[in-house]
Amino acid sequence: MTDYGIVAPAWAATGAADLVDDDALLSAMLATEVALAEAQAELGVIPAGAAVAIRAAAAPAHIDLAKVAAGVRDTANPVVAFVEQLTAAVRAVDPSACEYVHRGSTSQDILDTALALLCGATLDRITEDLRATAELLAEHAELHRDTPMAGRTLTQHAVPMTFGLKAATWLHLVLDALQRVRTARASLPVSMGGAAGTLAAYHQYALDTENADDATLRLPGLVAERLGLTEPVIPWHGIRTPFADVAASLMITTGALGKLAADVLVLSRTEIGEVTEEPAPGRGASSAMPQKHNPVFATLVATAARQLPPIAVVLFSSMMVEDERSSGGWHAEWQPLRECLRIGAGAAANARRLVETLQVSPEKMAANLQLTRGAIVSERVNAVLAPLLGKGTAKRLLAEITAEAERDGTDVAELLEIALKAPGVTCPDVPGLFDPSGYTGISGPLVDRALQHYTSTKVKLT
Amino acid sequence: MTDYGIVAPAWAATGAADLVDDDALLSAMLATEVALAEAQAELGVIPAGAAVAIRAAAAPAHIDLAKVAAGVRDTANPVVAFVEQLTAAVRAVDPSACEYVHRGSTSQDILDTALALLCGATLDRITEDLRATAELLAEHAELHRDTPMAGRTLTQHAVPMTFGLKAATWLHLVLDALQRVRTARASLPVSMGGAAGTLAAYHQYALDTENADDATLRLPGLVAERLGLTEPVIPWHGIRTPFADVAASLMITTGALGKLAADVLVLSRTEIGEVTEEPAPGRGASSAMPQKHNPVFATLVATAARQLPPIAVVLFSSMMVEDERSSGGWHAEWQPLRECLRIGAGAAANARRLVETLQVSPEKMAANLQLTRGAIVSERVNAVLAPLLGKGTAKRLLAEITAEAERDGTDVAELLEIALKAPGVTCPDVPGLFDPSGYTGISGPLVDRALQHYTSTKVKLT
Amino acid sequence: MTDYGIVAPAWAATGAADLVDDDALLSAMLATEVALAEAQAELGVIPAGAAVAIRAAAAPAHIDLAKVAAGVRDTANPVVAFVEQLTAAVRAVDPSACEYVHRGSTSQDILDTALALLCGATLDRITEDLRATAELLAEHAELHRDTPMAGRTLTQHAVPMTFGLKAATWLHLVLDALQRVRTARASLPVSMGGAAGTLAAYHQYALDTENADDATLRLPGLVAERLGLTEPVIPWHGIRTPFADVAASLMITTGALGKLAADVLVLSRTEIGEVTEEPAPGRGASSAMPQKHNPVFATLVATAARQLPPIAVVLFSSMMVEDERSSGGWHAEWQPLRECLRIGAGAAANARRLVETLQVSPEKMAANLQLTRGAIVSERVNAVLAPLLGKGTAKRLLAEITAEAERDGTDVAELLEIALKAPGVTCPDVPGLFDPSGYTGISGPLVDRALQHYTSTKVKLT
Amino acid sequence: MTDYGIVAPAWAATGAADLVDDDALLSAMLATEVALAEAQAELGVIPAGAAVAIRAAAAPAHIDLAKVAAGVRDTANPVVAFVEQLTAAVRAVDPSACEYVHRGSTSQDILDTALALLCGATLDRITEDLRATAELLAEHAELHRDTPMAGRTLTQHAVPMTFGLKAATWLHLVLDALQRVRTARASLPVSMGGAAGTLAAYHQYALDTENADDATLRLPGLVAERLGLTEPVIPWHGIRTPFADVAASLMITTGALGKLAADVLVLSRTEIGEVTEEPAPGRGASSAMPQKHNPVFATLVATAARQLPPIAVVLFSSMMVEDERSSGGWHAEWQPLRECLRIGAGAAANARRLVETLQVSPEKMAANLQLTRGAIVSERVNAVLAPLLGKGTAKRLLAEITAEAERDGTDVAELLEIALKAPGVTCPDVPGLFDPSGYTGISGPLVDRALQHYTSTKVKLT
Repeated sequence: MTDYGIVAPAWAATGAADLVDDDALLSAMLATEVALAEAQAELGVIPAGAAVAIRAAAAPAHIDLAKVAAGVRDTANPVVAFVEQLTAAVRAVDPSACEYVHRGSTSQDILDTALALLCGATLDRITEDLRATAELLAEHAELHRDTPMAGRTLTQHAVPMTFGLKAATWLHLVLDALQRVRTARASLPVSMGGAAGTLAAYHQYALDTENADDATLRLPGLVAERLGLTEPVIPWHGIRTPFADVAASLMITTGALGKLAADVLVLSRTEIGEVTEEPAPGRGASSAMPQKHNPVFATLVATAARQLPPIAVVLFSSMMVEDERSSGGWHAEWQPLRECLRIGAGAAANARRLVETLQVSPEKMAANLQLTRGAIVSERVNAVLAPLLGKGTAKRLLAEITAEAERDGTDVAELLEIALKAPGVTCPDVPGLFDPSGYTGISGPLVDRALQHYTSTKVKLT
Repeated sequence: MTDYGIVAPAWAATGAADLVDDDALLSAMLATEVALAEAQAELGVIPAGAAVAIRAAAAPAHIDLAKVAAGVRDTANPVVAFVEQLTAAVRAVDPSACEYVHRGSTSQDILDTALALLCGATLDRITEDLRATAELLAEHAELHRDTPMAGRTLTQHAVPMTFGLKAATWLHLVLDALQRVRTARASLPVSMGGAAGTLAAYHQYALDTENADDATLRLPGLVAERLGLTEPVIPWHGIRTPFADVAASLMITTGALGKLAADVLVLSRTEIGEVTEEPAPGRGASSAMPQKHNPVFATLVATAARQLPPIAVVLFSSMMVEDERSSGGWHAEWQPLRECLRIGAGAAANARRLVETLQVSPEKMAANLQLTRGAIVSERVNAVLAPLLGKGTAKRLLAEITAEAERDGTDVAELLEIALKAPGVTCPDVPGLFDPSGYTGISGPLVDRALQHYTSTKVKLT
Repeated sequence: MTDYGIVAPAWAATGAADLVDDDALLSAMLATEVALAEAQAELGVIPAGAAVAIRAAAAPAHIDLAKVAAGVRDTANPVVAFVEQLTAAVRAVDPSACEYVHRGSTSQDILDTALALLCGATLDRITEDLRATAELLAEHAELHRDTPMAGRTLTQHAVPMTFGLKAATWLHLVLDALQRVRTARASLPVSMGGAAGTLAAYHQYALDTENADDATLRLPGLVAERLGLTEPVIPWHGIRTPFADVAASLMITTGALGKLAADVLVLSRTEIGEVTEEPAPGRGASSAMPQKHNPVFATLVATAARQLPPIAVVLFSSMMVEDERSSGGWHAEWQPLRECLRIGAGAAANARRLVETLQVSPEKMAANLQLTRGAIVSERVNAVLAPLLGKGTAKRLLAEITAEAERDGTDVAELLEIALKAPGVTCPDVPGLFDPSGYTGISGPLVDRALQHYTSTKVKLT
Repeated sequence: MTDYGIVAPAWAATGAADLVDDDALLSAMLATEVALAEAQAELGVIPAGAAVAIRAAAAPAHIDLAKVAAGVRDTANPVVAFVEQLTAAVRAVDPSACEYVHRGSTSQDILDTALALLCGATLDRITEDLRATAELLAEHAELHRDTPMAGRTLTQHAVPMTFGLKAATWLHLVLDALQRVRTARASLPVSMGGAAGTLAAYHQYALDTENADDATLRLPGLVAERLGLTEPVIPWHGIRTPFADVAASLMITTGALGKLAADVLVLSRTEIGEVTEEPAPGRGASSAMPQKHNPVFATLVATAARQLPPIAVVLFSSMMVEDERSSGGWHAEWQPLRECLRIGAGAAANARRLVETLQVSPEKMAANLQLTRGAIVSERVNAVLAPLLGKGTAKRLLAEITAEAERDGTDVAELLEIALKAPGVTCPDVPGLFDPSGYTGISGPLVDRALQHYTSTKVKLT
C-alpha cells in the first residue's frame, strides 16, 4: 500500500506520517522487545547474554513487513508474525538466546507499548509546533493590541474589537491544546500484563529468582524507564483511558487550530481581505485560474479539524470492550489512533506555517469598519440614548434607522440627527460617539491578561 | 509513508488497499486526463494527435508521487503538481501536444472523477465477495432449516429457533448491503465542471467549434462513457451526494457483516461452542497460549464494523460546504473516503472467509437447549396454562418455578407438576410440551421465504 | 422532563417535535396493539369482541407515561409497563378481553412498529417541506438563469457564474434528498417476530385455527396493511437496515440543506450582501445590538446539518448487534432515531422558510463582480493569450498582473495592455473580454437541464 | 414536547433529566441574570434597588417557556425572548428597575453561563454516583482478591485470573472517570463577554464609575463567585474548550462504565452465569417469557456507552467556529451537551445500581475453569516444557493436544502424559501444574496496588 499523502491534505508533506508509519511502529516494537529482555536480564529472569543478542538482532532490516501484514489476517494482530521473524533473527545471532525472545509476553503488551511510544513522539512534535505557534500569536496580540477591526457575530458586523483580542483568543486556544497535549503525553504507560493481565507467564519464568512476585511486580516499571513511559498501576489491556486521553487532546488541538483556520478563511475572503497568507511562488495556486491566491494553510488546518473528531470517536467507543482482551474493540483502535496522531501533527505543523505567513492589513480593517456607515456602534448609541428615550424606544428607533441606512446607503449619524428632532431630544455630546475605534471596550486590557496568562503558562509547560 | 496494513486488521492482506492506494489513484487520474483529451478530440476541441500523445505519455512511471504529495502542501490538492509532471511527460512525447493537457479543466474535475473510479472498482470487488457470502449463507440456511438451537435475547436463553433462521437473517442483511452497494455503484458520475461549475474554460476552448454550447454540454457524457461512469445532470462540485451514497452503502455493508461477526463471536465462546472457524495452521493462534484458537475472521469483520461508521460521518458532514468549491470540506472527504472503501472491501473479503470456514455444531446447539432444564419453553407453557390459570397467574407461577429451577438445578417440568397439584389443575397433555425442537414457531417457513427472496433478488442484482 | 425546544434551534417551534414525542409514540404503540388484535381477530386467533374491546380501551388517557418511563429502568424497555396499563384499561372495558392484549407478542414488535410509524409520519412531513423548497428554488433558478455573480472557490473569487446555476445546485440537492427520503419511507416495515423472531407464541395461539402456519405467516402482512407499513420478508429484530436507511436519508437531507445554508451564510455577510433573509419584526434580532439582522433560518439549518450526522452514527453502529435481540444495541437506537427525525424535520421546515424569505440582490452581485478589477476573468484571458504566449508564459504573466492589480488597486486590463507592449503581442480583439457577464460558460443551459430534471423527477416523486 | 424518557433507557427514571431540562435551564438563566445585576450593583454600575427588584422578579413562574421556544425560531437563541419576559416581570415589581435587566449583556453570556451551571450540577451528581460505585467495586476487589476465574481473550478461555483483579480493573476505570469529571467541573467558567467579547456595553454602562476599565474587568469574577463558577482569562465565546472538556470527561465516564457493563453482559450469559444482577420483582422481566431475568442495569449502561461518543463529537467539531460568535457552531452545541450530560448522569446512576445488585458466583467460576479440561493452563505447561523440548516444539505439541482434548472431550493432562512417553521426556513434577487456581500470576498483589491507588486517589478527589 503506497501512501504518500496525495489525498491527505491534513498531513501531507509535514513529516507527521513518518512519526507513525509502519517503519516507525516496527522500530517501536523492536525497542519494546529489547527493553523487555534487558529488564528481564536485570531482574535475573533471563541470561544477560540473551538480552545482548536480542538487542543485536533487533534491526528493522530483519523484519519483512509484508509478511507481518499477512500475519494480521491469520491472527488478527501483527505481533505473532513479528515475533516469529525476530526470533529467527536472534537465532542467527545466538541460537541459545532465541528462547528468551518475547518471554512471558503477549501481543497486546508489545503493540500497546509500541503505540504509546508513537503517541509520545507525535505529541512531542505537536508540542513543538504549538509552542512556536503560540509565540507568534502572542506577538500578533501585542502588536495589534489596539488595532481596531469589526467584530462579527452570526456573519454580520456586530461591534468593533481589536485584532489583538482576536489573536489573543487564538493564543488562548493554542495554550488550551498545549496543556492537554502535555498532560496526555506525561501519563503514557508501558503495557506489561501478559495473556490476561495477571503477568502469569512473566511470573512463571521468574519462579527461579529469589522473589518471583517482586521481580514480576518490578518488571513493568523497569521496561517503562527504558522507554520513557510511565508505570501503570495495573495492566491496562481493558483500561483504555490512555489512548482515549490522547484522542481527547488531539480533538482539542484540531478544534483549537480549526477556530484559527475558520477565522482566517473568513477574513481572507476576496470581499473582506483583512488577513492573507503571504504569497510565495506556487503556493495557493490554482490549476486553472492565474489570479488565484488561495488560503492554503488555513484550508489544510480546516481539513484536519473537520476530519479528526469523528475518527477519534472510535477510541472512545473502544473503551467499552468485553473480556480481558476484546475481539474487535482493541483492534479497532490502532488505525484510527495512527490517523488521529498524524492529522493532529499535520494540523500543528500547518497552523504554525499559517501563523508564520499571516499578513495583517490594519488598513482593510479600518475600511471595513466604515462599511455600515455607523451601524457598527449602534449598541453604544443605544446605551447613550436609552436613558433619554427609554430602553425599548431607543432600540426600536435605532433598528429602524440602521435598516434605513443599510437600504439606502445613507449615514446612521445623519439619520439619527433627523430622527431626534421630532421628540426634541438632544443626543448628548459624546466625543467620537460614532468612531468605531472608540468603542472597543476593554479589548486592550483583555489582551494584556491573555499575554500574562501566556507568560505564566509557558513556563509551566516547558 | 509505508503502510502495509500491520495495524489495519480491517483490511490487511485482503487486497483491498491496492484498489485505493496512491498508485491506484494515480492510474485513475491519468485515465481521467486521457479520457478528457480523447473526448475533446472527438468534439474537435483539441487536435486528435494531441490526445494520442497524451495517452502515450500518461504512464505512472512519469509521475513522482512524492513530488505530488509535496504539492499538496502548496496548493491543498494533488492535481496542480500532477498536471505539471504530466505536461512535462507529454512535452517529451510531442511538444505541440502539451498545450492540450488538462485543457479547460480544474483540479476538482480530475480528482473527483478519479475517486469515483476507485469507488467503482472497490464496490465491484465488494459485490463479488458479498455475492459469494450470500450463496454460502443460503446453503447454511437451507441445510439447517430445521436445526434447533437456543434463541437468545438480552444475553439470556429466550425461546428455541433454528440455525437456518439465523443464517437466513445474516443472508437477508447481506442482500440489503448488496442492493445498496449496487445502487451507489450504478450512479457514480464523472466530474466535469471547470473552475466554478460553469464549464467556462471548456467552453472557451470550444468557441472555434460549430456549436460551442453543444460541444461543452456533450463533453461530460463523452468522458463518462470512456470511464464507465454516469453523466451528471449538472456539475457536482458542491453536490456531494454521490460520495455520501457510497459512504451510506459501506456503512450498511459493515453493519450487516458486523451483525454476522457479533453472532459468531458469541456462538464461538468457549462456554457456548455452537459455531467455530475451521482450524488451520497458524490461524487464530496466540503468541503465548498454545491452546488458543481465536475467531479471527469474525474479529477482523467486527473491527471493520466498529471503525467505519464514525469515519463515514466526515462524508456526510462534508456535504455542507460553502461556495462553488469549498476550503476544507471537499479536502476532508478524500482520505476518509479511501479509508471507508478499503475497510468495506476488507470486511467483505473477511466475511466471505468467515462464512467459508464456518463450522456448525448441531450437537452443541442441542446440548445448550437443555441447559435451562425446560425454562427455554416457558413462553409456550405459559400459553398453555394461561387459559387454565389466567394470564397473570400463569406467568407469575412460571416465573417462580423457573427461578427455582435455575437456583437449585432442578427440572422445570417436575416443579410444574408439583405446583399444579395444589390448584388441582391438570396440565393438558401436549405431546412434547417441553421439547425445545417442538417450539420453533414458523422458523422453517420463514427460512423458505428468505431463500425465495434471495433467489429473486439474486437475479436482479446480477 | 420538560423540553420545549429552548436549546434546540434545529427544530424549535417547527412542529417537528410533536411528530415524535412521547405522546406521538404512545399513540403509535396503541395503534400497533389495536392493529395486532384486529389482525388476529380477522385470522380467528382471538375473538372479534376482544379486538373491539382493545380498540375501545386503547386511548392515551389510560396510560401514565411517567409510570412507563419508570418501567424502562426495570425492564430496559417501555413496553412491559405499557402493556400492563393497557391490559388494565381493557379489563375495565371487558374483563374477558384482557387475555388477548399483546397476545403472542414481544416488546420489540410493538416498539419497532411504533417507531416505524413515527418515521413514516416524519418523512412525510419532510417530503412536503422539501417539495415546497424545491418549487421555490426552481423559480429562483429560472428567474436568475442569466443573472451574473462571482463564482467563489476556496473563499476567493474564481470565475463568473449565474445565480440561476447556484439555485439549480441547491435544487438538485433537494431532489437528491427527496428521492432518498421517499425510498426510505416506502420500505418501512411492520415488526412482528415474537420473542426470538420465530413468531412462536403467535403460532402457539393460532394452533386452534385451521392452518396455524398459514395464519402466522399472514399475520405481519395484515398488521402492516392496517398501519400503512410494509410486510418484511422475515422478522427484522436483528436486521436493522430499515432504521439505518431512514438515518441515511436524513443525513442526506441535512447535508443537502446544509449546503444551501452555508452558501446563504456566506452570501449574506455584511461585506458581500448578495442575498438576505427578508426582514420581519423581531426576526434576526439581537438582545444587544439594534442594527442586527442575522440570517436566522440559515443558522437554524446549519445547526441541524452540524448535529445530525454524528448522532446518526449510532443507528449504523447499532446494526452490529448480537443475538436475536441485543442488550444495548437495540436500546441505543431509539433516542438518536427520534433526535434525527426531529432534526431532519426541523431542517426541512426551516429551509423552506429560508427559501421563502430569501431576497436576492443582482445589483450587489454585479458590484462584487467588479471588485477584483478584471482578475475574475483571468482564466478566460489566459485561454486567449495561451496560443499567443504559450500556456506557461501566459499563466505566469497573468499571475503577476493580477497580483499587482490586487496590491495596488489597479485595473487588470490596463496592466495587461502595458505588459503586452514589450513582447509586441496584440491581445486579440475579443469583444467584452473583461466583461464578467460574458464568461459564465454554459450556466444557462445547465440551469435548463436542472429544471428539466426537476420537472421529470417531480412527477415520479409525487 | 413531552419527554418522560420512555425511549431513553440511558437515563430514564434516574433523575438525570431533571438536572438539565428546560426548567433547570430556565432557573440557571434566571440565576445568571440575578448574579449579573447584583455584581453590577456591587460595582456601582446599576442601583442597588434594581438588583433587588430583579432578584424578586426572577421566578420561573414569570417565564412562558413555550414563548421562549417560539423565540428561538425568530432569533436562533432563547435569550432574546427570555429577556423580554424577564423585563416585563421586573417592570411589574419596579418599573424603574427594568432598564437594568441584562444590562450590557449578550445572549451568549447568559446561555453559556447557564449551561455551565447545568454542567456543574450534573458533574456533581455523577461524582457522587461514581464514588459510591468505586467504593463497592473496591469491596468486591478486596473480597475476591483470590477468587479464581477464567481470564478470557478474543472470546476464548485464556489463562486463569481472579475476580478481584477484574473488579480492580473496573475500579481503576471508575477512578479515571472520576478524576476527569472533577477536573472538568473545577474549571467551568462564567461567560461575560458582551456582544463581541470586548465587554464594550458593560464598559459603556460603567463609564460613570470611578474606573470603568477596572469595574468591567472585575465584573466576570464577581458573577462567577456568586454562581460557583470560575473567572475566565478572556471571554470564551469563540474558545469552546470548557464544554469540550466536559464532553471528554463524559466520554471517559461512559467508556469506563461501558467496560463494566460489557463484562457483566458476558459473564451473566446463560451459559456462563458467573455474575448476575440480584433478582427483584419486575426487574429484568420480559413481556412474553416468564423465565426471563435480563441483565437490566448492564443493558442500560451499555446503551449509554454506545450513544454518547458519537453525540459528543458535535462538541468537538463545534470548536471550529468562525467569527466572534458563530452562526450554527455555537447553536449546535446546546442540545448535544444536554444529551451528553443526561446520558452520562444516567450511566453513573445505573452503574451504581448495577454494582449494588451484582451477585458473584465463585462456584460457577470454579466450574467454568474446568470446562477446557486443563487447556486453560497450557501457557504454564508450555513454560515448563519449553526448556525440555524447545520453545517451538513445546508449543506445537500443546497446540495439538489441546485441540484433540477439545475435539474429543478428553483431558489435557492425560494426553500430555501419553505424548511425553515417545520422546521419553518426563514432565517435571510441578505440584498442581494443572490446577487453575495455582496459575493466577500476581493477581493478588495487583489487586493490592489497585486498592492502594484507590485509597490515595479517593482522598485527593474528595
